[in-house]
Amino acid sequence: MQKILNKARNLELVEGIKSGDFRMLAKAITLVENGDRNSEKLLGMLYPAAQKSYRLGVTGPPGAGKSTLVSRLVKLFRQQGKKVGVIAVDPTSPFSGGAVLGDRIRMSELTTDEGTFIRSMATRGSMGGLSRTAQDVSDLMAAAGLEVIIYETVGVGQGELDVARASDTTVVVLVPESGDSIQAMKAGLMEIADIFVINKSDRDGAEKMKIELEMVLQLKTVKSGWKTPIVKTIANEGTGLGQLFLLVQEHIDFIEKMHILKNKHSDRIRDKIQHLVASELEQKFWNNERKKLLNMKLKAVLDRKMSPYTLVRKIINI
Amino acid sequence: MQKILNKARNLELVEGIKSGDFRMLAKAITLVENGDRNSEKLLGMLYPAAQKSYRLGVTGPPGAGKSTLVSRLVKLFRQQGKKVGVIAVDPTSPFSGGAVLGDRIRMSELTTDEGTFIRSMATRGSMGGLSRTAQDVSDLMAAAGLEVIIYETVGVGQGELDVARASDTTVVVLVPESGDSIQAMKAGLMEIADIFVINKSDRDGAEKMKIELEMVLQLKTVKSGWKTPIVKTIANEGTGLGQLFLLVQEHIDFIEKMHILKNKHSDRIRDKIQHLVASELEQKFWNNERKKLLNMKLKAVLDRKMSPYTLVRKIINI
Repeated sequence: MQKILNKARNLELVEGIKSGDFRMLAKAITLVENGDRNSEKLLGMLYPAAQKSYRLGVTGPPGAGKSTLVSRLVKLFRQQGKKVGVIAVDPTSPFSGGAVLGDRIRMSELTTDEGTFIRSMATRGSMGGLSRTAQDVSDLMAAAGLEVIIYETVGVGQGELDVARASDTTVVVLVPESGDSIQAMKAGLMEIADIFVINKSDRDGAEKMKIELEMVLQLKTVKSGWKTPIVKTIANEGTGLGQLFLLVQEHIDFIEKMHILKNKHSDRIRDKIQHLVASELEQKFWNNERKKLLNMKLKAVLDRKMSPYTLVRKIINI
Repeated sequence: MQKILNKARNLELVEGIKSGDFRMLAKAITLVENGDRNSEKLLGMLYPAAQKSYRLGVTGPPGAGKSTLVSRLVKLFRQQGKKVGVIAVDPTSPFSGGAVLGDRIRMSELTTDEGTFIRSMATRGSMGGLSRTAQDVSDLMAAAGLEVIIYETVGVGQGELDVARASDTTVVVLVPESGDSIQAMKAGLMEIADIFVINKSDRDGAEKMKIELEMVLQLKTVKSGWKTPIVKTIANEGTGLGQLFLLVQEHIDFIEKMHILKNKHSDRIRDKIQHLVASELEQKFWNNERKKLLNMKLKAVLDRKMSPYTLVRKIINI
């Protein structure tokens, strides 16, 4: 009975999403986010319908003005007639899974536009898991006819890597005050940024930061042939946004021409398949007998009477 | 032959580490960091010798003065006669795996002290992987007689969760200027901080930040009975460090009395065992035949002629 219900629900969702129904899209995303067992079938059914969509990552430290910048970019894509999806990854607790109200409010002017779909996601669980969920959510969005998907994430450390993996183009947003942050994150940022934005560039230190960035970028070994540009913007006034938008277009053209896009896509799918396999293997492995053995012997390991490695052997050879 | 060599090397390392030889400890850590196949045996051999050590996590945004603060805390622990290990997780590229020179230099005054061992680690790979490696490295350090192990990490998003999982006590360091960051990270920070530090508190806005933090902390549901304190410090002058140190001691006593420490330890070991199992399952699974099938069919998935889920089924049922 449950199976039939699931099937009927899936069919309804699939048809709804294919026809561009955002309400159905939202429902399906919730299923995927919650890791609903049935969502895999749904994703499989929609997979052929998910036409190619362009994925733009916007990352940077908290308070850099990413949301405002994303809102502006959405409008520019909309002016080109493109439908846009935004996945805002909330820099909130992996424990509480809550959302940051501020960002949602700032973006709310977009939500009345029919060609824009905005979704907040919590970073619960692992960040690696996040980039995979984001990819599934993007596939759903693409199946609903969204042509551009923008990820907005807070980037420090692992967050940057994740957004770079999931995106075709990565924009790193900094502000003049994040001097210290750059110092610390330099290596990581240099590797992932396709375009640098210095936002709030009417503040002190913007030009100094630009010069510093340029110096560091000169040291970067350019493998692909793309020279990472730096744009100064004042997002809430719209200054510099046109230039940024042009550079984004240029980067799209570049990676397509250089076959980089294709490689990115196949890396993502390979990663996805390996992850799907891993979670299935684990699920099959941890039967009741094995769980019981782990619980029984945990104290011995805690008391250092048995090493975790010995216990792993025992559990595997049960 | 290689096996005999490995065995001899392991024995030498085990004896060296047990006798507190830091040179041997450094060698063993490198093996663990590189994921050397042999390192598991080594960890198993040293596991019974790894006496209980206390793990203190110090996290916060870049530029908050964490390294200086850690240096000061090390000195205070040293004055108690305790041997201290520091694991500084570099906020550098997961790609390049490079290290930040600055932090190393700032800490260098400690390296001449015989009771202190400092190690930088890159965040390469996943952050979840980092916390596991950090745990292994801590076990090695504990086997070498280090009684206090301090993790210094950059915390935004996932980084915070990781340090909280790996630590018995988590200190979150902020500076008056990180107002925006707090706004964004509030939920996450509130959950993991056992102690808040407002460093560089001679700067404008320190008191305002303290009041704001206090207000938010009042909303926090206190499960354990521990009321998260806020300390103002000026780390490079030593101001407030005595108070911070006292609070750290208080927290240690508290979690021991409340049996929270024991639960933290068993959670960590459970996580470790599950991870060891998962990586062994994956390794066994991906034989040449399966790898070949994945490579062969990847294009069909890219062209959306086959869904990743179908391919996973094929690979599993080969």
